[in-house]
Amino acid sequence: MRVLGIDPGLRNLGWGVIEAKGSRLSHVANGIIHSEGRDLAERLKSLHEALTEVILRHVPDAAAVEQTFVNKDAVATLKLGQARGIALLVPAQAGLAVGEYAPNAVKKAVVGVGHAAKGQVEHMVRFQLPGVELAGPDAADALAVAICHAHHLQSAGRLAAALKGAA
Amino acid sequence: MRVLGIDPGLRNLGWGVIEAKGSRLSHVANGIIHSEGRDLAERLKSLHEALTEVILRHVPDAAAVEQTFVNKDAVATLKLGQARGIALLVPAQAGLAVGEYAPNAVKKAVVGVGHAAKGQVEHMVRFQLPGVELAGPDAADALAVAICHAHHLQSAGRLAAALKGAA
Repeated sequence: MRVLGIDPGLRNLGWGVIEAKGSRLSHVANGIIHSEGRDLAERLKSLHEALTEVILRHVPDAAAVEQTFVNKDAVATLKLGQARGIALLVPAQAGLAVGEYAPNAVKKAVVGVGHAAKGQVEHMVRFQLPGVELAGPDAADALAVAICHAHHLQSAGRLAAALKGAA
Repeated sequence: MRVLGIDPGLRNLGWGVIEAKGSRLSHVANGIIHSEGRDLAERLKSLHEALTEVILRHVPDAAAVEQTFVNKDAVATLKLGQARGIALLVPAQAGLAVGEYAPNAVKKAVVGVGHAAKGQVEHMVRFQLPGVELAGPDAADALAVAICHAHHLQSAGRLAAALKGAA
């Protein structure tokens, strides 16, 4: 199963694709999309185009987006929301169910604790996806979201299998 | 010239299309899009589809979106941002330049003062677009945004003509 993780941002949107076979994970690709355009609408359009291209190229079976919100700065929160809208829209348009995970849930899935430092997340992403070359911190975060979603889908699958066995 | 105005919202997205001939404005259509879907990504996809349909049906030459942000509630601001991302994306995908106006600028253009009450905006929209039947308050706000953008484009056009005459 191929899983796409997205760390949304208006200027830099991180993405990462992993392959999950049972509990074995491997890296497929990662990158950062830099939005382009004179105004906000153009930037969002360029994000949409580039993210659509990522999905067409890597054909994921599932997708997940980090669930962040900036508490202090309403303008920054609105900007992030706009980019996040595109990050959720594109996989939905491709027919994928889109998972959402809070940053602490992602950290817990990847590092084991919810309050891990940024560097720890990157370290564990490198550990779990040997040989990965990271396009940058946003791409590392996106791969962490993909790992978190893969774990979640596997647990859900195991649960479903266990329930089926018990029935 | 046909102008589309959008008042973005995740549950209810208001839209309105007007025709501007010189300084004469007339109503074309207005409505409210109610997003549908089990999760956020599905809702955003349904907004995208319905707003794309509005543009295909009414073929506007220009578009504008209200520039709001909720200051107190970060979760509400993020939600609004996500819907706003779609509202900006769809006209950009149709090749339209997308204007953005703060609520006070819209009120000033329609009512004459920046701190008009909601009822006053609706009243002036009805006055400027005789015979209009409003789908609801969000549609009235969207028509107000369209009127504001039409005024702005006309002023810009007059300014360009005046500068050309002076050259």
